Amino acid sequence: MNRETYHIFKQFMLSCMEDSAHDKEHVYRVLYGALEIAETENNVNYDILIAACLLHDIGRKEQFENPALCHAAVGAEKAFDFLVKNGFDREYAEQVRQCIQTHRYRKGNPPQSIEAKILFDADKLDVTGAIGIARTLIYKGIVSEPLYSMRPDGSVSDGDGDEKPSFFQEYKYKLENIYSKFYTKKAAELAKERQAAAAAFYNGLYGEVSLLHRKGRTALEEKVR
Amino acid sequence: MNRETYHIFKQFMLSCMEDSAHDKEHVYRVLYGALEIAETENNVNYDILIAACLLHDIGRKEQFENPALCHAAVGAEKAFDFLVKNGFDREYAEQVRQCIQTHRYRKGNPPQSIEAKILFDADKLDVTGAIGIARTLIYKGIVSEPLYSMRPDGSVSDGDGDEKPSFFQEYKYKLENIYSKFYTKKAAELAKERQAAAAAFYNGLYGEVSLLHRKGRTALEEKVR
Repeated sequence: MNRETYHIFKQFMLSCMEDSAHDKEHVYRVLYGALEIAETENNVNYDILIAACLLHDIGRKEQFENPALCHAAVGAEKAFDFLVKNGFDREYAEQVRQCIQTHRYRKGNPPQSIEAKILFDADKLDVTGAIGIARTLIYKGIVSEPLYSMRPDGSVSDGDGDEKPSFFQEYKYKLENIYSKFYTKKAAELAKERQAAAAAFYNGLYGEVSLLHRKGRTALEEKVR
Repeated sequence: MNRETYHIFKQFMLSCMEDSAHDKEHVYRVLYGALEIAETENNVNYDILIAACLLHDIGRKEQFENPALCHAAVGAEKAFDFLVKNGFDREYAEQVRQCIQTHRYRKGNPPQSIEAKILFDADKLDVTGAIGIARTLIYKGIVSEPLYSMRPDGSVSDGDGDEKPSFFQEYKYKLENIYSKFYTKKAAELAKERQAAAAAFYNGLYGEVSLLHRKGRTALEEKVR
């Protein structure tokens, strides 16, 4: 890919996510992760891969404003229209569209091309390790969801089986299980290296708050009669 | 303290923070931490301590809406008025006011009474360890600040000396240095037990993202010419 093309894609990406500094960072991490994964795969078309990485989340704003929309579907169409309008080959635009459309984890819509699989894996890689924890917590702040829920008996729930959304619920439901969901060997390896950091943080946090609540409730019973 | 009084204070606290599930959790952690600290101190008045803990952040909403206001000052006045209006002793209301007024870290306004020192320490304890990391990340989401800033050379800044707000900046500026700021021995001990979890998370996250950016930028240079 030449510099001018990269610059055009980058500018379009930035114009779609002007309000969210952290989303822009995520896009670069996905791009960089994808390039690392691609090194160990054969016949990767970097023009498709780089465009798909840069543009994969350009439908986020639409989904945030209307949660009925899927950012992967919206972003895929936006990217296709943008590429065709800017004079890129239709076949090329179609391949970028396919990658973006299948980057979200959904049953019945798996990534097909090697570029689509790499984008999928690089995006999921950003949900692993300390970075996955950090992004999930930031998101909980944006949507005003708590760290944890309380059980009916007054103890802190570890998130397992919770219906109410919380950080612990998302850790148990999504973050803890992401490590078996990769298409490429390299991404699975990179994820595996980060797994212990995420587990250590979750276990440490659960330990801190559950102990504090348990001791505190007992102490409170003594002081409030 | 009797159950009715505790209930009145709790209801007033909840009415002041109805919009933020995580702030309510913080209040209980501060209360429980304070009770644990208080066990190792002499002559603690639990009626003052419990009221001050429950009501310490009731000025948060006012500060959020107008950052020129200090939530400690606003909350102290709100608590005093609430207590006097509900028929509590003026002297008691005054002592609770003092605790709330001095719970925020500010030069020239240190906590004086043992109850004020315990509230200060219990509040700071919630900035240590994994819970301090989690709360700071949630807050970054609420105020739309990023995880990290980039240095002019394109590398990830570790936050040290950064002027732009970010999670790494706040870690270096505040979270890393909190461990020497306690008044009571017990709080300093509890904080110390949590210190390694916070450092491990920060180091792990910085390691993940700085490595990814460094490798990624090199790979991108090769593919975009």
